[in-house]
Amino acid sequence: MQENHEDLTLNIPDTGKKRVVIIGGGFGGLNLLKHLKTGIYQVVMLDRYNYHTFQPLLYQVATAGLEPDSVAGPLRKMIRKKDDFHFRMLTVHRIDPAQQLIHTVAGELKYDFLVLASGSKINYFGNEDISGHGFPLKQVTHALDLRSKIFQQFEKLEILEEHDGLQRYFNFVVVGAGSTGVELCGALAKLRNHVLPSDYPELSFDRMKIYLVEGLERVLPAMSDHASRKAHHYLEKMGVKIILNTLTESYDGETVTLNNGNKIRTNTLIWAAGVKGNIIEGLKPESLHKGRIQVDRFNRVYRDQEQKYPGFFAIGDVAIMETEKYTGGLPGLAPVAIQQGVHLARNLKRIHRQKNLKPFRYRNKGVMATIGRNRAVADLPGGLKLGGFAGWVIWMTLHLLYLVGFRNKAVVFTNWIWNYFTYDRGIRLIIRPPGKDKDLISREIASEVGDPYT
Amino acid sequence: MQENHEDLTLNIPDTGKKRVVIIGGGFGGLNLLKHLKTGIYQVVMLDRYNYHTFQPLLYQVATAGLEPDSVAGPLRKMIRKKDDFHFRMLTVHRIDPAQQLIHTVAGELKYDFLVLASGSKINYFGNEDISGHGFPLKQVTHALDLRSKIFQQFEKLEILEEHDGLQRYFNFVVVGAGSTGVELCGALAKLRNHVLPSDYPELSFDRMKIYLVEGLERVLPAMSDHASRKAHHYLEKMGVKIILNTLTESYDGETVTLNNGNKIRTNTLIWAAGVKGNIIEGLKPESLHKGRIQVDRFNRVYRDQEQKYPGFFAIGDVAIMETEKYTGGLPGLAPVAIQQGVHLARNLKRIHRQKNLKPFRYRNKGVMATIGRNRAVADLPGGLKLGGFAGWVIWMTLHLLYLVGFRNKAVVFTNWIWNYFTYDRGIRLIIRPPGKDKDLISREIASEVGDPYT
Repeated sequence: MQENHEDLTLNIPDTGKKRVVIIGGGFGGLNLLKHLKTGIYQVVMLDRYNYHTFQPLLYQVATAGLEPDSVAGPLRKMIRKKDDFHFRMLTVHRIDPAQQLIHTVAGELKYDFLVLASGSKINYFGNEDISGHGFPLKQVTHALDLRSKIFQQFEKLEILEEHDGLQRYFNFVVVGAGSTGVELCGALAKLRNHVLPSDYPELSFDRMKIYLVEGLERVLPAMSDHASRKAHHYLEKMGVKIILNTLTESYDGETVTLNNGNKIRTNTLIWAAGVKGNIIEGLKPESLHKGRIQVDRFNRVYRDQEQKYPGFFAIGDVAIMETEKYTGGLPGLAPVAIQQGVHLARNLKRIHRQKNLKPFRYRNKGVMATIGRNRAVADLPGGLKLGGFAGWVIWMTLHLLYLVGFRNKAVVFTNWIWNYFTYDRGIRLIIRPPGKDKDLISREIASEVGDPYT
Repeated sequence: MQENHEDLTLNIPDTGKKRVVIIGGGFGGLNLLKHLKTGIYQVVMLDRYNYHTFQPLLYQVATAGLEPDSVAGPLRKMIRKKDDFHFRMLTVHRIDPAQQLIHTVAGELKYDFLVLASGSKINYFGNEDISGHGFPLKQVTHALDLRSKIFQQFEKLEILEEHDGLQRYFNFVVVGAGSTGVELCGALAKLRNHVLPSDYPELSFDRMKIYLVEGLERVLPAMSDHASRKAHHYLEKMGVKIILNTLTESYDGETVTLNNGNKIRTNTLIWAAGVKGNIIEGLKPESLHKGRIQVDRFNRVYRDQEQKYPGFFAIGDVAIMETEKYTGGLPGLAPVAIQQGVHLARNLKRIHRQKNLKPFRYRNKGVMATIGRNRAVADLPGGLKLGGFAGWVIWMTLHLLYLVGFRNKAVVFTNWIWNYFTYDRGIRLIIRPPGKDKDLISREIASEVGDPYT
C-alpha cells in the first residue's frame, strides 16, 4: 500500500536544522523528547496514537478501577511548548537505514538521526488460536475491551439458567505470572471479593475462579525469591489458583488446553505471557537479537558485526543492550526506556557539540508489583526487599510520580483514595464497538442474548 | 430471531409479589426505581446498557471536556440496596400489552405492571444518507466517536499538503439549534479558541468554521425570545455561523446540501435536529401520537379511545402527555421524565393500597442552555430570565445536582474547575474501534493515512 507514496514526501517544514525523527511516544520516546534541548535540532515524533499510554496501570482500567483517560496523556500537549518540534499521527511502514529514510503511509521522510522507540508488542509465540480468542493488555483499547468482557460475563450469567456449561463464564485464566499477570489476578480477586457480590446478588461468587498459569517454576520469575514467595502467598490468600511449570497449548474461546493435558473451561483468557520487540520492516537479521534490535552502549544500531548505520538509534523495549552486569541484555522495563531516552538526549547534544558520546549505564531503581489492597512486593536497589503495606505505599507513590501530567496524577490519586475507602469501583461501564464479541448464548443452546450495541 | 425463544421464560425468581417491569434506565426509569418502596413489588429493570447516561453532558464528552465514565452511572449500583429488585442487561424485542407479556432476546416475561421508559432515539426524518454519514449524540459511544472524529480531522490536516479540498476538514456543521446543538457549537468554539491552536501550531484556526443550521426562525426555538436572542448573540460573538430557516436536504460525507441550494463542504456533520419516541414493537397505531405513546394524566397507555391496557404505563420521552397548559404535549425534557418517574412510583404505591390514582402535574423547573465559558441562558419559573455568568453558575450547579452518584459529581466538578482555570481539555484521546472511519485520504488522491487502529 505504501508503494504508491514512494515519490511523496511527508509534510514537515525544512528549517535548515538537522532532523531527529523519533518513532513512538512511549516511555523512551517521550523522555528523549523532553530532554532534547530546543533550538539544536528539528524534532519529529511519529506515533500511531495521539497519546502516551501508561501501560503499568492498564490492568486497573481493565478491572474498572481507573478511567482510560487517566492512564493516557495527549502527546501534543508535551510537544507544544518546544520550538521546531512536530508531531504526526501515522504508521511507519518501513525504514531504510542505509539511505536515512523512513517510509510512512503519508510519504517518505529523510532524517539525520532516527530513534526507534516503538516498544514491544504481544508475543503469542505463533499460537494463532490464542491470538484470535485471548485478550491482550498492551493498549488502552485492550483494557476497555477486557473491562467490557469481564462485566458482560456476569450480565450474561444473570440471564442464563443454571446448566453445566455455566462455569466457563465464572472462570478467568491469566497466562503469564510476570507483573502484568500477577497484578491483574490481584485486581480480579479484589473485584470478586468486594465489588461483584453486591452488584450481582443473585450469583454465587464462590464459583468465580481465577487461574494464573506460568511456564516457569515460580510467579514473578524476574524478581527475587523473596518477592516471588510473598507474591505467591498473597495471591493464594486472595483465592487465586496458581499453576506453575505449565505451558498453555491452545485456546478455542471456551477451553484452554495446558501442556500437562489438563483443560480449563473459560470464556476469558488474558494473555500476559510475553512480548517481543515491535520491529519495523527494513532491518537486516544481522541487526537483530532475541527478537529485538541489538544496540551498543550508545544505543546505536549496527548493520553487521563491524559497521553501524549512520545516525540510527533504538531505545527501550524494542532494543536489547548487553552490559557487564546484564550479559543477557537489560530487562524490558519502563525505567530502562526512560533512562535510555534521557541518556540519548544528552548524547545527541554531545554530537551537536562534537564531543564524544558517553556509554549508557543502567541505574536499577527496583522492580515492584502490587497484589490487591495493602499488598505489594518490591526488590529495591542494594538488595532491599519490601512487602505488604510499605511496598504498597511505595508502589503507589512511584506510579503516581511517573504518570504523565499533573491532571492524570490528581485523577488517579483521587480514584485510589476513593476505591480504598469505599471498596467500590466506579467505572464498570460496558462500552463496546458494534459487532465486537456478539457471543451467541442462551440457556441450553447458542442464541443471541443481551446485545447492548444497537 | 426472538421467535426461537417464544417458549422460554426469562430467568427471574418468582417471589409471589406482583411484578413491575421497567424498560429503560434513563431519567424516568431510574427515578421511578429510586422511589418505589422496597417490599411492595418485585421490580425488574431491563436496559440494553449496564449504565445510566447523563445525556445533557454528552456534548462535553464529545469535545474532550469530560471523561465518558463520569457522565454515566452503573445501574446495578442503584439497585443493589433494594430488596427483590432485579436488573437484566438485554434488549426487549416486542411487548404484548393485551397478554401482559414482554418478549426479550432471552425469553418472555409476564408482568403485572409494565413501565415503558425507553426514551427517545435520533430522528433522521428518513434521510438515509445523513444517518449513514452524520454523527448522532445520544449515547456515550456516540460522544466517544465524535470526539475521535474531531481530533482526527486536525491530525490529518497536519499530514496533508495544502490543496483546495482541505477546507472540509476545518468545517463543522451542526444541524439543529436546540440545546444540544447550541451547547455543542459553544463547546466547539471554545476548543477552537483555547485548545486547538496550541495543540496544532502548524494549522491556522482562522480557517476552522462552525455552522449551526436550524429549520425554524431562531436558535433555541423552545425557549423564550430573550434566551434565544442572548444565545444567538453569544454564539455569533464566539464565531459560530448561524443559518436559520433552512433545512438540510442531504449529506454524502463530504458535502451538505441545504434546501436553499447552498452547499457546505464538511467531513463532520452532527445531527441534533430531532428525536422520536424509542417505541418497542407490539403497540397499535391507536396508542401512538406524534411518534410517541399517548398517555393520560396517570401515564396509562390506551388500546383505543375508550379502553386502557391493564397495568401498562409509559413515562418520559417515549410518552406524550397533553395537559391544560401543554395542549401539544409536555416537552421532551429530563425534568418531565424525572417527575413522571417519581409520580408513577407514588401512584403504584396507591394501587397497592387500593387508593385512587392522582393525576400528574408538571412543575416547570426552567430550561437552560450553556454557551461556552461564563455564558448561559435560562428561562426560570415565574418568567425569570437569566443570562451570562449568573445563568452559567446556575446551569453548572443544577447539572451537578442531577448527575448520578457522588463520585461522578466530584469528578465532573473537578474537571470543570480544572478546565476553567487552565483553558485546557485533558481528554483528547482518539480511541476508535478497528475498522471504524478508516477514511481514505492523501494529499491529492484518496489513499490510506494515519491508521491508529492496528
